[in-house]
Amino acid sequence: MAPVKNGRHLFNEIPEGYPIPGKTTVYDESQTIDLDNAPLNGGFLVKVLVLSIDPYMRGKMRAANTKSYSPPFELGKPLENFGVGVVLRSESGDVKAGDHVYGVLPFEQYIVRPNLSGLKIIKNEEKLPWSYYVGAAGMPGQTAFFAWKEFAKAKKGETVYISTGAGPVGSIVAQIAKNEGLKVIASAGSDEKVQFMKEIGVDVPFNYKTSTVADVLAKEGPIDIYWDNVGGQTLQDAIEAANTHARFIECGMISDYNTTEKYAVKNLLNVIAKRLSINGFLVFDLLPKYGDEFYQTVPAMIARGEIKFLEDKKQGLDKVGEAIYEVQSGKNHGKSVIVVADN
Amino acid sequence: MAPVKNGRHLFNEIPEGYPIPGKTTVYDESQTIDLDNAPLNGGFLVKVLVLSIDPYMRGKMRAANTKSYSPPFELGKPLENFGVGVVLRSESGDVKAGDHVYGVLPFEQYIVRPNLSGLKIIKNEEKLPWSYYVGAAGMPGQTAFFAWKEFAKAKKGETVYISTGAGPVGSIVAQIAKNEGLKVIASAGSDEKVQFMKEIGVDVPFNYKTSTVADVLAKEGPIDIYWDNVGGQTLQDAIEAANTHARFIECGMISDYNTTEKYAVKNLLNVIAKRLSINGFLVFDLLPKYGDEFYQTVPAMIARGEIKFLEDKKQGLDKVGEAIYEVQSGKNHGKSVIVVADN
Repeated sequence: MAPVKNGRHLFNEIPEGYPIPGKTTVYDESQTIDLDNAPLNGGFLVKVLVLSIDPYMRGKMRAANTKSYSPPFELGKPLENFGVGVVLRSESGDVKAGDHVYGVLPFEQYIVRPNLSGLKIIKNEEKLPWSYYVGAAGMPGQTAFFAWKEFAKAKKGETVYISTGAGPVGSIVAQIAKNEGLKVIASAGSDEKVQFMKEIGVDVPFNYKTSTVADVLAKEGPIDIYWDNVGGQTLQDAIEAANTHARFIECGMISDYNTTEKYAVKNLLNVIAKRLSINGFLVFDLLPKYGDEFYQTVPAMIARGEIKFLEDKKQGLDKVGEAIYEVQSGKNHGKSVIVVADN
Repeated sequence: MAPVKNGRHLFNEIPEGYPIPGKTTVYDESQTIDLDNAPLNGGFLVKVLVLSIDPYMRGKMRAANTKSYSPPFELGKPLENFGVGVVLRSESGDVKAGDHVYGVLPFEQYIVRPNLSGLKIIKNEEKLPWSYYVGAAGMPGQTAFFAWKEFAKAKKGETVYISTGAGPVGSIVAQIAKNEGLKVIASAGSDEKVQFMKEIGVDVPFNYKTSTVADVLAKEGPIDIYWDNVGGQTLQDAIEAANTHARFIECGMISDYNTTEKYAVKNLLNVIAKRLSINGFLVFDLLPKYGDEFYQTVPAMIARGEIKFLEDKKQGLDKVGEAIYEVQSGKNHGKSVIVVADN
């Protein structure tokens, strides 16, 4: 067969504020690949099916010499993030054509891998859509599941506040918390998202653009757990509304990602007065501890409808820039996924 | 015997900034007591020997309707804090003349108590000075001992930074940390205090008025544990210099106690990036868990010279105002104690 285009989505420029589609990142079709004859050298060829767009990717769009927890994207190279692909050809004994693999993949249509390092073969006995393995059954679901287990110390009857409660992480946290008998307060940025939070059982869903966080928490709090996806003033409001011995789970601070002047939190004296515990974490650190339990329980719960989950899919690797912008600015509604190929 | 004066030190006025001796608090000698005939009604009469002056007392100098972890002082009533007294007369079966009691006492020379509630009889088999029971063998020592056990998760070879490392809490933390094989960085506000930190084994003692915290931590860090007695910009500098998975023990934020405009911390995004855990605590919460172990081990360690400890004593209940001001402004050198009576 003749070579086919191998589209890629490249990191093109370090953004100052929000990443701009076509400028910060660009779609490129200059490369081709011969699917039948590309040399595998004992490895295997993967066709990428779905790629995940997540808030934390913003932190990787930085100068190469700025240190952070996750390595920066390389200018001129494809972006990278969690995805699922199907194996087309294999010379490896560990994986065969037709297997599906999950892990951090470069943003291109076809890739050759020398071995399974960093990848996991997904059996998918529950027959979930493959995209779920970058969502509720993937990194966002793991984020919710792992950190709740590690830090929440939840007791029935307590109150939790979740910022971005309609998001792929927040919505799973909300359902875990409801399941454990907590009162769940959760915010999001549109009435459509508020409606979704109602549907998944959130007790006090609200639109932070029409109600202020401080007012809602003053009325519905105090809160025993704060699941933070936002940081900044929302974090400050949550500290103000915290009960003594409240646990803060610091998952994300999206309000700080796209600004040069970070919000300054003024009320940290409460950390002592209220004996707060504030816990930063990265999902990758907790994978060894809770990964097996997650894969044994969560995909089956999703299949049985016990965890509801919303996706915001875009078709085509050229749509990555738009999807990134929407996730950073809160315009997506559900887990943002790029469908690179249907099968 | 004729009635004698029963001097008291009263809370007189809510301060705006620093408490002012003779204004915020006043010494009063208008009351008398007949030591031989004052009715005990089944209780006992205590002569107060020593009273402790601690940073947290500032938080109690507030309007009665402002909630906080510790109840406010009452205007026109004696201040209260930890102290040791000797029983002069008793009608109670639980305590006899000559016993020494420890607990929160009102700032007056003589008090009648109906029972032992809130007090502990101190045997003092180690023959320590009674004042030590409000210092290294009292609340400050407990603060260091309990919270280190609860939160430090220290490993040999790690680095800890202690702000106010010459203070009654910080200096004990420094000695515990050295004992466990850590590199200890500690700051204080005078060269005299730096000298004391050297004497107790601090590896990198420095004067924060002549060296900046950020510079010293950049050179000597990163830090794995931060023992915070200061808050504000020092906390921000410690976050900047923190290693991944660093533990922050939030003991005090004295830089925020005497200001109306609290310092705003700008770099909390690092809580996630570095996976920090930030833990507020109050010593009283941890007393049930570690109290027995403390009294079984620490007074003996002090007696054997394994824990060194510095006191800043003032003679007389009329000196309370000066002592409070010095503690709030960092002018004391060692644990501030009011000696009310020598025996």
